[in-house]
Amino acid sequence: MGPHPAVAAIRLAVRRVLHDILNEHTAPSDDAPHERPPSPLVLVACSGGADSMALASALAFEAPKLGIRAGGVTVDHGLQPGSDLRAEEVALRLRQFGLDPVESVAVTVGREGGPEAAARDARYAALDDAAARHGATAVLLGHTRDDQAETVLLGLARGSGIRSLSGMAAVSGADGRYRRPFLQLDRQTARKACMVQSLPVWDDPHNADPAYTRSRLRHEGLPALEKALGKGVVEALARTAQLSRDDADALDAWASQAAAAVRDAAGLLECAKLYALPPAVRRRVLRRAAIEAGAPAGSLFARHIEEVDRLITGWRGQGAINLPGKVVAQRQGGRLVIRQG
Amino acid sequence: MGPHPAVAAIRLAVRRVLHDILNEHTAPSDDAPHERPPSPLVLVACSGGADSMALASALAFEAPKLGIRAGGVTVDHGLQPGSDLRAEEVALRLRQFGLDPVESVAVTVGREGGPEAAARDARYAALDDAAARHGATAVLLGHTRDDQAETVLLGLARGSGIRSLSGMAAVSGADGRYRRPFLQLDRQTARKACMVQSLPVWDDPHNADPAYTRSRLRHEGLPALEKALGKGVVEALARTAQLSRDDADALDAWASQAAAAVRDAAGLLECAKLYALPPAVRRRVLRRAAIEAGAPAGSLFARHIEEVDRLITGWRGQGAINLPGKVVAQRQGGRLVIRQG
Repeated sequence: MGPHPAVAAIRLAVRRVLHDILNEHTAPSDDAPHERPPSPLVLVACSGGADSMALASALAFEAPKLGIRAGGVTVDHGLQPGSDLRAEEVALRLRQFGLDPVESVAVTVGREGGPEAAARDARYAALDDAAARHGATAVLLGHTRDDQAETVLLGLARGSGIRSLSGMAAVSGADGRYRRPFLQLDRQTARKACMVQSLPVWDDPHNADPAYTRSRLRHEGLPALEKALGKGVVEALARTAQLSRDDADALDAWASQAAAAVRDAAGLLECAKLYALPPAVRRRVLRRAAIEAGAPAGSLFARHIEEVDRLITGWRGQGAINLPGKVVAQRQGGRLVIRQG
Repeated sequence: MGPHPAVAAIRLAVRRVLHDILNEHTAPSDDAPHERPPSPLVLVACSGGADSMALASALAFEAPKLGIRAGGVTVDHGLQPGSDLRAEEVALRLRQFGLDPVESVAVTVGREGGPEAAARDARYAALDDAAARHGATAVLLGHTRDDQAETVLLGLARGSGIRSLSGMAAVSGADGRYRRPFLQLDRQTARKACMVQSLPVWDDPHNADPAYTRSRLRHEGLPALEKALGKGVVEALARTAQLSRDDADALDAWASQAAAAVRDAAGLLECAKLYALPPAVRRRVLRRAAIEAGAPAGSLFARHIEEVDRLITGWRGQGAINLPGKVVAQRQGGRLVIRQG
């Protein structure tokens, strides 16, 4: 008798990603075409919640069969009393799975960008460190399709275009270090897999705290949306993420080409050539030029770019336009000049 | 003393669109460069609800000042008892605004595509007819930013990519006949404008009927989303619509070019050239080719295109792939052949 369908599903998802890692890892390099590289190490980032516990159990099961070493990291954010003990319990659990090395890393969460962003930044810094310290090829993250749907809605609320709708990537970080095997798997399957394997899971109280945007979205926003639009909403949002990501990549590539093609011999942007571009490409070229001139990407909003765009499409002698980072955009004799003023 | 800010806002929105219509209408044609065309006629489509009543009042106020003739049409969908009297009341109201011609058109709503789609199809057919009968240059529609936000969420639920996120266009239909002056105006402003002008408005019971997806979205889904994500959600969704529309247009233009460039001398799609395209462009080329071969656009889903795409990106000798409309896609000697089988 095979494993329970939920367990089979989580293992298959992990196996696919491990195959990818193995293929990339063992591709012969130019330097040493015949040398077999040492067995790669894959870490799992585990909070003790159902998603990452399921992920850890699947990694522990699949890695040895593929000759991959498997370890685990749990991050103690220090945001709740007893979080250190909690982290030790998770580390113990990971060791019981047979993972090695396993470590629990304590971090200090700052305040920048709000509580959720600060916790995330601290967590990824700790995971980066751990990966470097242990020479890990990859770090697996337990984000599910439900997390992806929430991320898309959070991006939608920014209203800043399709890049912000593209959610989390299956592969991200330096050298594609971070992998998300469960991005097409629903949260319910991960929970079920823990249950049938009798794995105790920890529910982070933050996940139910209405002070957090994501928690409100999870417990109120998305269920209401499902009630109005039908059960397929989560899947539709996840699919939107993938399609948007591909679209945004293609348009960025186009803008990158166009940015070179619309400059004159002196490297200045020619208004006539900008005018001839499709609006979506032109705005990306303008955004890129503003950032190159020193405008901080995070402070540059759609309305800024629209105003600069009107120097091209609605020219009626406007003056210089002030952008964040003391960057100034102005039209001068058929050229668009964007520079720090 | 000027008008109430809400009345000023609806009038400004209408004035801008009338200016556009006038500019397009009086642009000298090649045939008769010096002949002044007759005064254009603009119709307003009015249900008697707050949005379209506000629109009608603003059109009646602004059109004469620009030498534009203004008329109105109300459509009796015949879905509720007394809807014919209701329509006559709306027509009377439009005449009281000074609009001329005004007509009430009764339609028969079919069943195709569900009750909302069937009512919409019947309505637009009637408006097209009325516009043609009266020789109208444009038909104004009262859709607000809130309607746009709902449309984006409905598109999101389909999960079929950024074209379905692009909502309603400010200008649409044959020859850009349909115009939506209120697409950047919130519903509250339209209501307020009716109130301060003492215009009686009719609340369509369908708008509050939970049997309708859009109604559930309006009364439950969107409010819950606003509660989770903050008050700016409607604006963010409307902005997403505009950005997605521009992005989708640019990618369609690219795909259109690419579709020609990837064909060999015999007009067949070359797999190697398809492979070199960005995924977002390649999938659009494949979708377009399937539709040209006879697959009905409405039945062609992302998963179909993904399967055809794997003939290019994941070739391992797969057999022919069946698509809707008896269209078959298969790889033959470095070429992708898509045709009705």
